Amino acid sequence: VLAVSGHSIGLLERFAAELFAAAGLDNDKAATVAHFLVLTDAMGRPTHGLAMAPLYLAEIEKGRASAGADAGMATTGEVHVIKDSGITAVWDARYLPGHWVMRQAIATAMQRAQQHGLAAIAIRRCHHIGCLAALVKVAADAGCIALIANSEPAGQRVAPFGGTQALFTPNPIALGYPGEPNAVLVDVSTSITTTSMTRQKHAAGEAFEHAWLNDAQGRPTREPAVLEHSQPRGSLQLLGGAEYGHKGFGLSLMVEALSQGLSGHGRLDAPKRWGGNVYLQVMAPRHFAGDEAFAAQTGFLADACRSNPPVVVSKPVRMPGDHAAQNLAAAERDGLQLAPSTQNALTQWAITLNVRTPWK
Amino acid sequence: VLAVSGHSIGLLERFAAELFAAAGLDNDKAATVAHFLVLTDAMGRPTHGLAMAPLYLAEIEKGRASAGADAGMATTGEVHVIKDSGITAVWDARYLPGHWVMRQAIATAMQRAQQHGLAAIAIRRCHHIGCLAALVKVAADAGCIALIANSEPAGQRVAPFGGTQALFTPNPIALGYPGEPNAVLVDVSTSITTTSMTRQKHAAGEAFEHAWLNDAQGRPTREPAVLEHSQPRGSLQLLGGAEYGHKGFGLSLMVEALSQGLSGHGRLDAPKRWGGNVYLQVMAPRHFAGDEAFAAQTGFLADACRSNPPVVVSKPVRMPGDHAAQNLAAAERDGLQLAPSTQNALTQWAITLNVRTPWK
Repeated sequence: VLAVSGHSIGLLERFAAELFAAAGLDNDKAATVAHFLVLTDAMGRPTHGLAMAPLYLAEIEKGRASAGADAGMATTGEVHVIKDSGITAVWDARYLPGHWVMRQAIATAMQRAQQHGLAAIAIRRCHHIGCLAALVKVAADAGCIALIANSEPAGQRVAPFGGTQALFTPNPIALGYPGEPNAVLVDVSTSITTTSMTRQKHAAGEAFEHAWLNDAQGRPTREPAVLEHSQPRGSLQLLGGAEYGHKGFGLSLMVEALSQGLSGHGRLDAPKRWGGNVYLQVMAPRHFAGDEAFAAQTGFLADACRSNPPVVVSKPVRMPGDHAAQNLAAAERDGLQLAPSTQNALTQWAITLNVRTPWK
Repeated sequence: VLAVSGHSIGLLERFAAELFAAAGLDNDKAATVAHFLVLTDAMGRPTHGLAMAPLYLAEIEKGRASAGADAGMATTGEVHVIKDSGITAVWDARYLPGHWVMRQAIATAMQRAQQHGLAAIAIRRCHHIGCLAALVKVAADAGCIALIANSEPAGQRVAPFGGTQALFTPNPIALGYPGEPNAVLVDVSTSITTTSMTRQKHAAGEAFEHAWLNDAQGRPTREPAVLEHSQPRGSLQLLGGAEYGHKGFGLSLMVEALSQGLSGHGRLDAPKRWGGNVYLQVMAPRHFAGDEAFAAQTGFLADACRSNPPVVVSKPVRMPGDHAAQNLAAAERDGLQLAPSTQNALTQWAITLNVRTPWK
């Protein structure tokens, strides 16, 4: 019998699902959101794991209380298909929970990609979709390539290159593809750092090690307070910062064009609800040069990366996704430790919603 | 009558086409390569304009002299279609001139995207495709979105993050989409700087302003010589450098997976010929939320960028593609000035090939 130093993944999933259901989310939606949040913690990305659950619970309560412009998360019903050609589609997700919408979108796109080689879905008005790496992993583990570009048209935290006024969100791009011993999971924001990292630094009273933000005059700063606690507000620096931030600007525009331009909803509509727009694309390598050729080329490259002589002898090169796979294996074996702040917040919600916690 | 301060675009195109044809390239291929190189100069990107012509001419001579492993550019014939599902395709470009292959690939993918919404072509063994912005412009000017990811499996100039040995190439990603008053043309390498910029710095005896390379031990350096003139060789830094180069690493892996994994040819095959692998994807917005919705969302965003209060009052925010459009208009009006080194090299080739130069 192995020593369990944390909470079992299964117990955490059931607990989180009970919380979401008790707050008013449909059961299948509650279970799916819980699954992805715990998976995200298990992959070692706690900013987008169960730490999000209290925020989602507050959104569910808002969603049940109001149907107005700031109505929070939608708790029931289906996505509306705006358009569908079989290869391309546009969905209106009506602010339904993002993980649940994305699981459905990925399954749909995977089925179509297996048939046609390629399929894309542009999604408007999705609620927060969380950790992109956890989502593309679903397709990659099933032998497909998944690309996600995600923006939040209600948020303004990144200025265009050479500008001072926040306009974009961190606009991540993710690509997952199958690999050995684990899938390759690329997941990068097109700003240097992210909203959640900045909030975490601010809450801890810490400055960033490097000047990854700009103040309201566009001057580089390490101070997280400029993002949400100063007037006038500053912004997160684009990938490339002051030196070559035109590159992050270009990539960020790419995410906006794919997720808002193709879905036909975005900043022009000045939405106020917390949510995300998504461009999802799934590709099946067998419709290109074949699964074996894809595995041979990408496997050769992964080997060449992992065996590359490292800068620091004790730090071998890791492929994106390697660390997540190791964390996940450890969490499945030993359970998960939650941050005290997360565990406390969940305990409060459990009391409010009359749900039993998996801890004393 | 406007004063013409440079060579007319039409004359330069005809001259370059004559050079390529005299060297042995099929006439239509010669004309297409000449068109794109001059367009690239006119867009203000001289490193990938006619400065490439002497290198291509040497490759054409190699191609006519040998059919071996380092046989240069193929001068005649067609691409081989390896696989084609109508939505996805794999082409073997047999080292035919990259601009000519790409013009054909873009036309094919555009036609299919107009019909199905989305089409992709993975291309192996293409010769150099030059400036990606000039290529995606073709689709963007026709109302489509074009994405290109490009790698060179015969080149090793960028190390994986945390590694010391060069493995990748600068691996650019480009996205073009329609816009007013000009198309938006994103074109970014996933390394901070590029091979051609580094060669230019080295030739001029200059160091970079910032440490954008690593020496063979992985230590940041401003010295361009480490890339090709030191033993053991250094490498170009990934986008994000020492601080957050894991992001450039992820994006570079994305380019390798799409351009080599999907085309089924790449570093595993250890090619020695100068060439590129390409992933091309074209999307038609009308099959998503529609051309008007796409123009409304992306147009709103472009306006918000261009009118963003600038960091430096005299430097308003520019959209990617704005500068190229201004340069192109100026070149069409006033003609083009070539760098003396480019003009001299072309003059030498003109003498060798018995072609008349457009200058005295």
